[in-house]
Amino acid sequence: MSPTGSGPEVPTPSGADLAAMYGSLKNWGRWGPDDQSGALNHLAPVHRRAAAALVTEGVSVSLAHDLAQQPSPENPFPVHHHMLASGDARDSNGIPGYEASRDYIGSDVHGLGVTHVDALCHMFVEGQMYNGAPAAEVRSDGARRNSVMALSAGLVGRGVLLDIAALAGVEYLRHDTLVTVADLEAAEAAAGIRVSSGDILMIATGRDALRRARGGVLNPGADGMAGLHPECLPWLHERQIAVLGSDGISDPMPGLGIPQWPFPVHQIGIVAIGLHLIDNMALGELAHRCRAVGRWAFLFTLAPLRIEGGTGCPVNPIALL
Amino acid sequence: MSPTGSGPEVPTPSGADLAAMYGSLKNWGRWGPDDQSGALNHLAPVHRRAAAALVTEGVSVSLAHDLAQQPSPENPFPVHHHMLASGDARDSNGIPGYEASRDYIGSDVHGLGVTHVDALCHMFVEGQMYNGAPAAEVRSDGARRNSVMALSAGLVGRGVLLDIAALAGVEYLRHDTLVTVADLEAAEAAAGIRVSSGDILMIATGRDALRRARGGVLNPGADGMAGLHPECLPWLHERQIAVLGSDGISDPMPGLGIPQWPFPVHQIGIVAIGLHLIDNMALGELAHRCRAVGRWAFLFTLAPLRIEGGTGCPVNPIALL
Amino acid sequence: MSPTGSGPEVPTPSGADLAAMYGSLKNWGRWGPDDQSGALNHLAPVHRRAAAALVTEGVSVSLAHDLAQQPSPENPFPVHHHMLASGDARDSNGIPGYEASRDYIGSDVHGLGVTHVDALCHMFVEGQMYNGAPAAEVRSDGARRNSVMALSAGLVGRGVLLDIAALAGVEYLRHDTLVTVADLEAAEAAAGIRVSSGDILMIATGRDALRRARGGVLNPGADGMAGLHPECLPWLHERQIAVLGSDGISDPMPGLGIPQWPFPVHQIGIVAIGLHLIDNMALGELAHRCRAVGRWAFLFTLAPLRIEGGTGCPVNPIALL
Amino acid sequence: MSPTGSGPEVPTPSGADLAAMYGSLKNWGRWGPDDQSGALNHLAPVHRRAAAALVTEGVSVSLAHDLAQQPSPENPFPVHHHMLASGDARDSNGIPGYEASRDYIGSDVHGLGVTHVDALCHMFVEGQMYNGAPAAEVRSDGARRNSVMALSAGLVGRGVLLDIAALAGVEYLRHDTLVTVADLEAAEAAAGIRVSSGDILMIATGRDALRRARGGVLNPGADGMAGLHPECLPWLHERQIAVLGSDGISDPMPGLGIPQWPFPVHQIGIVAIGLHLIDNMALGELAHRCRAVGRWAFLFTLAPLRIEGGTGCPVNPIALL
Repeated sequence: MSPTGSGPEVPTPSGADLAAMYGSLKNWGRWGPDDQSGALNHLAPVHRRAAAALVTEGVSVSLAHDLAQQPSPENPFPVHHHMLASGDARDSNGIPGYEASRDYIGSDVHGLGVTHVDALCHMFVEGQMYNGAPAAEVRSDGARRNSVMALSAGLVGRGVLLDIAALAGVEYLRHDTLVTVADLEAAEAAAGIRVSSGDILMIATGRDALRRARGGVLNPGADGMAGLHPECLPWLHERQIAVLGSDGISDPMPGLGIPQWPFPVHQIGIVAIGLHLIDNMALGELAHRCRAVGRWAFLFTLAPLRIEGGTGCPVNPIALL
Repeated sequence: MSPTGSGPEVPTPSGADLAAMYGSLKNWGRWGPDDQSGALNHLAPVHRRAAAALVTEGVSVSLAHDLAQQPSPENPFPVHHHMLASGDARDSNGIPGYEASRDYIGSDVHGLGVTHVDALCHMFVEGQMYNGAPAAEVRSDGARRNSVMALSAGLVGRGVLLDIAALAGVEYLRHDTLVTVADLEAAEAAAGIRVSSGDILMIATGRDALRRARGGVLNPGADGMAGLHPECLPWLHERQIAVLGSDGISDPMPGLGIPQWPFPVHQIGIVAIGLHLIDNMALGELAHRCRAVGRWAFLFTLAPLRIEGGTGCPVNPIALL
Repeated sequence: MSPTGSGPEVPTPSGADLAAMYGSLKNWGRWGPDDQSGALNHLAPVHRRAAAALVTEGVSVSLAHDLAQQPSPENPFPVHHHMLASGDARDSNGIPGYEASRDYIGSDVHGLGVTHVDALCHMFVEGQMYNGAPAAEVRSDGARRNSVMALSAGLVGRGVLLDIAALAGVEYLRHDTLVTVADLEAAEAAAGIRVSSGDILMIATGRDALRRARGGVLNPGADGMAGLHPECLPWLHERQIAVLGSDGISDPMPGLGIPQWPFPVHQIGIVAIGLHLIDNMALGELAHRCRAVGRWAFLFTLAPLRIEGGTGCPVNPIALL
Repeated sequence: MSPTGSGPEVPTPSGADLAAMYGSLKNWGRWGPDDQSGALNHLAPVHRRAAAALVTEGVSVSLAHDLAQQPSPENPFPVHHHMLASGDARDSNGIPGYEASRDYIGSDVHGLGVTHVDALCHMFVEGQMYNGAPAAEVRSDGARRNSVMALSAGLVGRGVLLDIAALAGVEYLRHDTLVTVADLEAAEAAAGIRVSSGDILMIATGRDALRRARGGVLNPGADGMAGLHPECLPWLHERQIAVLGSDGISDPMPGLGIPQWPFPVHQIGIVAIGLHLIDNMALGELAHRCRAVGRWAFLFTLAPLRIEGGTGCPVNPIALL
């Protein structure tokens, strides 16, 4: 059953079904043999202009979690925030009067508690990346193709939030829930919006509320976490969204148990469709703001650090309402 | 002489002059004894709304340099971009079908070639930070006050670019040039704009052209680099800008040689006025775009990673025209 | 009761007792006001020469654990072992024929699962270090005094292993056990050895067996771990050992619950006596070898990396029998 | 001409000569198809016992340089020595009375100024490692074969120092000098020693004096640095040394200019012979001590950190005389 009860039960696909879907949804070659932007090609200046016109309140909202500096099941590899100079070193640099503090920040990019964007080189299917490039082009000294530099000028466009938990009338989706197309369309209807070409679509499952319900500690790999049913992939493809984000990882955790297809949204979404994913977003305040203004579309901006060869980046996406 | 020849020669201030300026420009207490936002308080929702209305082209421009992965005089401590899993490890994680690349990114925050924002805890004057907090509150485990979290919801507002090099009719300002108030006002006049309350002001000195002129290698500490004359500080204070950025570090390099006041814009701007600074921006493409559309104001966004206790953050600021 | 039942029950000292002990065991000034070596001063060339004569088998034994590359309760901050160039990058450096792999290793020094040596600057008592230096001399850019450089020429001498678990006839000491002076002297008697001036003394509690008994996962902070009763400190002082090591942290975990004196061996041992500690050693194979040859003394070597200002170092101590 | 003038001029080999040498010196299979220790197999307990008997003074000498914390031409990637807690944080951990400093140390393993050991997986020739393993077994998540764990129990044996600069009567060898077999044998004769099976051989070229002569800054890649003539490789093979070290990198810098064979000692020594190399040693104090006691053999110990999959490790080798 879908979390919102909006449609009939949708069976779990087989591996053969997903293999077929993978083949049919490929955008490879669609924007030329050298394209490294994938579905970002759907996002044009006209969309940015229109999105800017959505700014009526002048309020900016962060869609990121604080970087974890202590370990937890969601953050087994916390960031390194190392102070290179604190107040105690203020006068020790040899320049009289120059009193400064300095620090270092380092992070695993793809941590399960890190709000981050996945570049198109992050996933392979049978040794191939988006647009047919071999996995071998992701070298131990960096990705030669499909790196995060596709987003180097920033991702700016219309953001759309579909809050499935709110639609279902719950604080969070059960850990074993799969969001279906019927759910997405019910959320569209409830929001009075249609997900369209070039949109940056975000799906809220209530992960923060789930964590709170579990006493503040969430172990997605062991406990499970809601995600999209693979049947959403053709729908996302057809709607021509530019980027997909979620407060989870878009895929359910710990996965569907389909051999060779543990994470279909990552595998088919990134590799076939060319979708950049934004994982582990903080969507609670945004949902609150959207409810308050009665509008679920807004100007969205995200700007990864310019990392040549990077497979993604921790980010602080911003919604402007 | 000012680089644009727009006014009379402005003498270099004495240490006593700067100490007096430091005292007179203090915004301490202006927004309450607990304020940690400083001049960001000038930036209100109405400014964001107005800035969004400036988006006419739908074009986004990055204002950051690529993170340096190899050492150079500008980047003596290059970032660590370490691939944790390249294409060669795609099938080695124990989940059949899960083929992924992963990496790690780490950076000194305040590198001279790193596009970054300075938090208000980055600078001290005689052991004090903005709003009177003692330097000792910046601990070796993080800043207790005035951290980069003041920007955690993103910096969004009207960006204004004053291209002093273009105004002077040169590709880059000489390394020993000090930009004066007369220059700033001449640039305003040429741009048909007035720097106003809540603005995010950026000053272009042509640093990238300077680097090119020096064969691609720039050593700002040894070679020098243009910056603002300290007389600009009262002007910036009066205009109530929210944030100051530059393709340099706003201060000239290697400094003015005034005892105890090596970097007045950092010292007085950050500590007294409460100005966040954005150092080492890439402003060339933005200047080109502004010239093309004949407008030097635009929607500006910057979103540092959410680092509790951080003294700043590498960023990729975005201008939206 | 002591783990070996070798003596009467020893009461837990009060905070006042420990404060008095701290005062009475101070070696401050003993080797001059500028000394930074502490009890290492007991270790003279004659001891090294004698220790070398103990080498009869020609067998070297590592006393370190593998550096943890995955998180666990003992290793909440695993090391960073990042491959900078794997086999896939062998031909990508621009020098024809030069095919090389390269990596990066980084570690928190004082991790509870990391075999490491504590420098004398690692601990303070009321803001003072060994020999009376203020804690403020340990700056956010490194220790000005009492750094790990005291061991820069290596620690070489007679190692002595006292295996308390074996003496007690168990695989591991119970987590709430405190090793007493009676235990140490019983172990000496059983080994036919006398701990003497300049010795590097190691105490085995069977931590690895304890971990195995708990299914391979040990959480010392939550589960507890055996250590030395504080009454051993005067004894260690009197015997003039140079360095103290253990398969635990010498102190019991999670501590004795004495206000202001949570870890007396660290506090009094390092700060008052000037004892370098070696924490989290792997002593199982060594105990096996010592039993086999019927001798519990051997040549011991340890060589921390030369880190100016360091508070310690991960190490791989070696016993040579 | 050899630096000591000890023999006739030795011509530079051709690429074909080196390819033939590579084939003829292979120890592959000599110690079984699964061997990962290479020439370490020459070093037996009897050698360690004999080496321990060389300890007459009881003096330990470090053979490592301080880890560089600031960049230089020799250390373009300095270590990260980050203080996690300095004196300012001593009372901020929540345990009353527990006052501690802590730090983090991280290093590129193979830096040109870092005293380090090369594991057998560090070099490939045409995609093969020692004993015929494919380069692909060195993955982006670590080496599957020939890692530094071959030295996990420590390297302990007879160290022999051949000081070629001293023999030549100079402080340092000219940057374009190649040490020949005649030089090695002259040094043996002068020292009254014969390099034998299982020895850890170290070659001193006077690099520290060369650096001093250049004003304290050495850029080996640009300036050049003395090393071994490739004709030494068959000699080292025949003598059955276990490990080779140098104050340089054993190979001359920037190389011989032979296509496909830029660094023959690394390529043939590591891959064919199975020689672990120790690069960038500090041999000055050791040479001084050896001269003082008139003996050039001593007990040598080196203990890399236990890094599963590591390609080497920064080390602090110790000589015990």
